[in-house]
Amino acid sequence: MENEDAMRFFIENPAPPTLSDVENKVNKFIDLQPENRNVVLVTSGGTLVPMEKNMVRYIDNFSAGSRGAASAEYFCKAGYAVIFLYRNFSMMPFVRHFEGPWTNLFAKKDDESPLSWEIKDSLRNMLSNSLEDLELMKEQNQLLCLPYTMLTEYLWYLKTVAEGLKCLRSRALFYLAAAVSDFHIPAQDMSEHKIQSGAGKDKLELTMRPVPKFLRYLVDSWAPEALIISFKLETDENILIHKARAALHRYNHQLVIANLLTTRKRSVAFVIHDSVMWLHLSEDDLRNGVEIEYYIVSQCVKLHKEKNLT
Amino acid sequence: MENEDAMRFFIENPAPPTLSDVENKVNKFIDLQPENRNVVLVTSGGTLVPMEKNMVRYIDNFSAGSRGAASAEYFCKAGYAVIFLYRNFSMMPFVRHFEGPWTNLFAKKDDESPLSWEIKDSLRNMLSNSLEDLELMKEQNQLLCLPYTMLTEYLWYLKTVAEGLKCLRSRALFYLAAAVSDFHIPAQDMSEHKIQSGAGKDKLELTMRPVPKFLRYLVDSWAPEALIISFKLETDENILIHKARAALHRYNHQLVIANLLTTRKRSVAFVIHDSVMWLHLSEDDLRNGVEIEYYIVSQCVKLHKEKNLT
Repeated sequence: MENEDAMRFFIENPAPPTLSDVENKVNKFIDLQPENRNVVLVTSGGTLVPMEKNMVRYIDNFSAGSRGAASAEYFCKAGYAVIFLYRNFSMMPFVRHFEGPWTNLFAKKDDESPLSWEIKDSLRNMLSNSLEDLELMKEQNQLLCLPYTMLTEYLWYLKTVAEGLKCLRSRALFYLAAAVSDFHIPAQDMSEHKIQSGAGKDKLELTMRPVPKFLRYLVDSWAPEALIISFKLETDENILIHKARAALHRYNHQLVIANLLTTRKRSVAFVIHDSVMWLHLSEDDLRNGVEIEYYIVSQCVKLHKEKNLT
Repeated sequence: MENEDAMRFFIENPAPPTLSDVENKVNKFIDLQPENRNVVLVTSGGTLVPMEKNMVRYIDNFSAGSRGAASAEYFCKAGYAVIFLYRNFSMMPFVRHFEGPWTNLFAKKDDESPLSWEIKDSLRNMLSNSLEDLELMKEQNQLLCLPYTMLTEYLWYLKTVAEGLKCLRSRALFYLAAAVSDFHIPAQDMSEHKIQSGAGKDKLELTMRPVPKFLRYLVDSWAPEALIISFKLETDENILIHKARAALHRYNHQLVIANLLTTRKRSVAFVIHDSVMWLHLSEDDLRNGVEIEYYIVSQCVKLHKEKNLT
């Protein structure tokens, strides 16, 4: 039933025109991997859901992509090849330490000359190092960055990557950190034009439908031998572990990483079968700027190894 | 009635903590203006409306801020002082010609040295000139940039700027190009936590309420002597002029600039009382990269002059 819903989604929401380009990139990237290198798909950022066909308004998931970008970086450092499926303009691995408008990168060197704008001295090392790391990872075929914006793009690309990774069997890891919309407005229900407010209209009622649960499809059909890790973000700590466990039972995959909106940068729970393992940053870690994604990725790499030994 | 709704909005949605800082900046900026300089508020970009108090999802209006940023630039060039109220990270005047991720601004100069990343030669002049222009306008107190994200921030800042500009009387111009949400979820109706999808839930029904019409309030109370220009964006050309005219009658201001999503970069209609004047870019303009905002702003400046002569 769930798998039928997933299949129908791809019939009702046709592939974006960019799909064949993405497919080529993914297959080429996978072909170039040495035999002993594992490959991880890291998804990151939020998905956009349009409210109208001629889109004026949309529903979005709040995510700067910090977790995904940091994790992609640590996976690269752990020797993985990383396919980074990220929301366009959200954070990227290695170059994620500069936020804010790009105009802040520059300062005027010489008050007399109008053409003397240069990279700020205080940022020059950070900038060069991070651009260099990013470039190196791409050159070594260890990082492929694929931007998406819409929910439909995200799901089509996910399908394409999963199909591409199937040949790697258990060498593939799925690390699904993107904030994917649970609800959308199906194409056939969507208003053609901008939804009208109009004088005297005292409310707008919007009916959204659940997005099919692709995780089940991923586990069953696309990547049956891969290690699949999903994330569960909640704001209410009373339901967090329960929701994570329900997802694990429902989709029959291996691991849910559960986290709360307010504490997600210092605490996460690994929910595996019947056990829950909490991972917290220590006071020392916080003082030294250690990121929780460093520990999360180490733990995931360990689990991937263990799975492939048994 | 409408004015009561507007007042209630500010009671139910308390001021953002940044408001007093914005208020200081605005008042200082207005104080510094020479007596013969007109001041325009240009609003730009879309407003964000949260779906939950602990925000995981939100509703947004599609707008890159191109029109607002270009218009702010032409108003500066026409000698106006510009208060630019823009969606954080959307386009800004003068530096708007570079889009895309900031990492694209740089190239490696020397293949051997990892620290040799510099501004790309092909972008250096554009970058220096645009940063120089932006800096100059700020130094000369001709441009004040105020970022917002949420609808509530936008409305509080609008109120503050309007109150600040009141003392300038007819020297003030309001150019309201931001894509402001028509609907929102009032604080008292908003879910505390992330709205749950849950297995078996076959739809999500969302009831949104109209955002009070602040334009009326602006015309009546905040800026009764200013020239007020609003925008109407539609996707259906059959209702465009009718909707623009309805807004003009409803709010009793001077000008609605009407435009269609698909043609907005080459055609707009000036809807004034009973007349409609279309403004189109010519083939020559398109070839030479002339922007329609150049003509829009010239026309607005002319109207502002005419109004102040009569």
